[in-house]
Amino acid sequence: MIEILKLTLLYDFYGELLTEKQKQVFEMHYQNDLSLSEIGEELSISRQAVRDQLKRTEKILIEYEEKLRLVERFQEQQRAVRKMKSILDEIAIGEISKETTEAISSMKQIADSILS
Amino acid sequence: MIEILKLTLLYDFYGELLTEKQKQVFEMHYQNDLSLSEIGEELSISRQAVRDQLKRTEKILIEYEEKLRLVERFQEQQRAVRKMKSILDEIAIGEISKETTEAISSMKQIADSILS
Repeated sequence: MIEILKLTLLYDFYGELLTEKQKQVFEMHYQNDLSLSEIGEELSISRQAVRDQLKRTEKILIEYEEKLRLVERFQEQQRAVRKMKSILDEIAIGEISKETTEAISSMKQIADSILS
Repeated sequence: MIEILKLTLLYDFYGELLTEKQKQVFEMHYQNDLSLSEIGEELSISRQAVRDQLKRTEKILIEYEEKLRLVERFQEQQRAVRKMKSILDEIAIGEISKETTEAISSMKQIADSILS
C-alpha cells in the first residue's frame, strides 16, 4: 500500500491530468479527510463506488509516476539541496569575513526557498 | 513559435506520455536532425503528414506543460541552484580554513550534480 504522503505528492504533480470528478473525490478524502461513507453520502453514490473511484485515481497517479519519474527526480534534487543546507549550517561562521558570512546567509535563503 | 530547446525539454519531461509513433517522429526530427521529407521517405508517408504529426505532438507536449508546469518548476530550481553556485564561486577561498574550503568544494560538487 502506497503511503498517503507519497500519494499527496503524486497528486501535487499529476493532479491536473485527472478529471474534475477524480480530483473532487481525491481531495475530499485526502485533503478534507472525509471517510468513504461521508463522501458517498455527499455525492449520492455508494461507499463501494467511492472506494473504487479512489483506487482507480491512485492507480492513474502511480502510473504517471512510473512513466515520468518526475516526483523521484524532484525528490532527488530536494535531497541534494538539503545536503547543501546541512553543510552550510556546519560552516564555522566565527572564522570567516563579513562578506563570506553574507554569502553563506544568501545561500541558506536560496536553499530554503527551494525546499519550501 | 516555441523554440527547439524548450521543446526538447518538454519532450524530456513528458515524452513518455506520447505514443511510440509520436516519439519516433519527434526523435527523428529533433534528435537525429532529419528533415520532414527524409522522415516521410523513411516512414513511407507524405512530408505534409510528417509535418501534421509533429505539430500535433508539439501541441500535446505544450498542453501537458500548461497543465502541470513541471518544466517551469524544474527550471526555477535550476536557476536557484545556479545562483548558489555563483555565490560559492565568489567566496574568497584564501581567507578561510581548510574545513570551510572543503565544505565549499562539497557544495560545488552537489550543485554541479543537480545542474548536470
